[in-house]
Amino acid sequence: MGREMIHFEKALEIVLQHAVTMETERVSLENSDNRILATDIHSDIDMPPFHKSAMDGFACRLEDLKLELSVIEDIPAGHIPEKNVSQGFCSRIMTGAMLPDGADCVIQDEEVDFTVDQKVRFVGTRKPYNICQKGEDMKVGGLVLQKGTLIHPAHIAVLASVGAATPEVYAMPRIAVISTGNELVEPEHFPPKGKIRNSNAMQILAQAKRLGCDAIYAGIAEDDPDATREIIASATSDADIVLLSGGVSMGDYDFVPAALEDCGYTIHFDSVAIQPGRPTVFATKPGKYCFGLPGNPVSSYVVFEIFVKPLIRKLTGGRVEEKGVFAMMKGDYKRRNTARKSFIPVQFSADGNVKTVDYHGSAHIHAITGADGLVAVEIGSSGIADGEKVYVRQI
Amino acid sequence: MGREMIHFEKALEIVLQHAVTMETERVSLENSDNRILATDIHSDIDMPPFHKSAMDGFACRLEDLKLELSVIEDIPAGHIPEKNVSQGFCSRIMTGAMLPDGADCVIQDEEVDFTVDQKVRFVGTRKPYNICQKGEDMKVGGLVLQKGTLIHPAHIAVLASVGAATPEVYAMPRIAVISTGNELVEPEHFPPKGKIRNSNAMQILAQAKRLGCDAIYAGIAEDDPDATREIIASATSDADIVLLSGGVSMGDYDFVPAALEDCGYTIHFDSVAIQPGRPTVFATKPGKYCFGLPGNPVSSYVVFEIFVKPLIRKLTGGRVEEKGVFAMMKGDYKRRNTARKSFIPVQFSADGNVKTVDYHGSAHIHAITGADGLVAVEIGSSGIADGEKVYVRQI
Repeated sequence: MGREMIHFEKALEIVLQHAVTMETERVSLENSDNRILATDIHSDIDMPPFHKSAMDGFACRLEDLKLELSVIEDIPAGHIPEKNVSQGFCSRIMTGAMLPDGADCVIQDEEVDFTVDQKVRFVGTRKPYNICQKGEDMKVGGLVLQKGTLIHPAHIAVLASVGAATPEVYAMPRIAVISTGNELVEPEHFPPKGKIRNSNAMQILAQAKRLGCDAIYAGIAEDDPDATREIIASATSDADIVLLSGGVSMGDYDFVPAALEDCGYTIHFDSVAIQPGRPTVFATKPGKYCFGLPGNPVSSYVVFEIFVKPLIRKLTGGRVEEKGVFAMMKGDYKRRNTARKSFIPVQFSADGNVKTVDYHGSAHIHAITGADGLVAVEIGSSGIADGEKVYVRQI
Repeated sequence: MGREMIHFEKALEIVLQHAVTMETERVSLENSDNRILATDIHSDIDMPPFHKSAMDGFACRLEDLKLELSVIEDIPAGHIPEKNVSQGFCSRIMTGAMLPDGADCVIQDEEVDFTVDQKVRFVGTRKPYNICQKGEDMKVGGLVLQKGTLIHPAHIAVLASVGAATPEVYAMPRIAVISTGNELVEPEHFPPKGKIRNSNAMQILAQAKRLGCDAIYAGIAEDDPDATREIIASATSDADIVLLSGGVSMGDYDFVPAALEDCGYTIHFDSVAIQPGRPTVFATKPGKYCFGLPGNPVSSYVVFEIFVKPLIRKLTGGRVEEKGVFAMMKGDYKRRNTARKSFIPVQFSADGNVKTVDYHGSAHIHAITGADGLVAVEIGSSGIADGEKVYVRQI
């Protein structure tokens, strides 16, 4: 291979440059969570669509507050008032119900007394209003959600309320995961001498599914040029993004680069100045993307977060940058080798600070399980001082 | 109804007191994400399972570093070395491969020169080691994950590596969502005069599914005692948790409490000193839980987060408290009415501070879509001052 080691920022730029936005499709609201809007969404109604009562009470005229009022109608939510409210009259009205013509306020139940002949008397001290104006929250045609919005349950309520019952969203890329390495056995088997369990594939599948992707496991590629080429070719025809786990160190027994090129991929980089994750490979062919992820689970996890996730976001029209949080570092973090950008796992403490999790190298499989986020340490920096404010990319 | 309004903390305590932990089941690793472990997980192997090379290079004896070494074997990852390394010899070894007997260090490729007769000569300046010791990360029988752990993709890698291929997890409660109110039409219809769209049901389903629950929509209950009782009875037989949206204000047109009691439920509270979410109802019968959620989407969203989610966590053996973050409030937040505990939507700014999102009351449907979290304002407090440190419950 022998391509030069490039900086993280350059590598990410290369990945994003190659991303061609996916097609769009319509989905039901029930299937819209975690998808990205492909159009702006405008309201087809005023919200609220009519003057409505904000309280259970009695709708009347402000100028009649000193009068005893006869109740002329009962207006539950969802009913259309049949009578106008004129001087000396009021209508019983429920929260959310339509205000009757003539009325300009609602006296809430708590501020009402009844006379012996069941007339309503206002006994409050402050002038009541208790009406939500038609169009107060949104006018017909108003922009409610922008193209590129990552849909969250609360957005679904908004889509529902403006009639966007089958919103147009970007298709999600389909992902195939291939594990490489003769040394691997699947988790259900006890590894014979010299072998280890395949711990990466199911982790990568879960990461991809959390982003809403359809992800399939293509199995373990034998360390053999033909087998490697065949499994990559097959995964490429099944998926938009092929993720290879392991098999991409600088070793002699690495058939992946040649197999990728045989399958028509161009390799853009194979070494990134990051820790963990140096032997990360990125290759493309038209409409297809392939990453070679490092062989150990912690490195693989981090590389998915910092490269694969931004690619998926870009492909699906979303925001590439994650919205992280800031926190104060508790305790020093020091490192000797400053040649690479590090992503170190950190944990929130109960008081909102972060500390590094016990982490002895990228082979330490537990490092990420106790982590709440990653903190970057830039090239040239020898660490983070106690009390320093750091940006935490949450995981 | 007329039960007394209770404090949030008391209400949450009542909810959690009634939670009876679900049964357990085994799932495949592929289906284990977002589930909660029902047992401690111990390793069935040493990790690494053998002394392994941390580098591509040459395995030899530390005492031979000054010698020219003949290469006797090639050891790729996954192979078992066939030869012992003795004085004057070395084996070519790849990252992750098993160290041959006799060797106690690996010289990395970058620190090797070859003699004319292809012997290996160490040219580094620092004594090499480059070995991961057997059991360095984990010993056989060691505790790797604790009962109650909420499984995240990184945990899946750990489960895979120790052979927990079908971990035992708590069953997820099945959820049924019922919307109530004559005023509702489904999102695909344009609401006739006096009606509004049902914006809550799909939001609640999405919130439940994000927690890994199987959630079904039972439809809109007519505002009628028999229909309300029937739909609640049917949802109760289909699900563990019944979530009613709307229909639980203090109004005259509210058939829910009576219907719940007819279905055998005991109502524990129907009014909580929170804003939004005051008219929240909680009822149980053996093995069944029911919430009446407020009718507007913002209130419903918040009440799900602060009551339903903790119930689901408790039922499934998980940690009830969400791990939030701390941030600095930018700008004052003031309120007049201090009688209830408020949950106000806030947004992170790029510098890690939070500000309140534009929010004019619980009917304001957009308030939550722009929010990154909720900040609690306690009873008696008139707000949050600019610069105050606040705890943000992320959403």
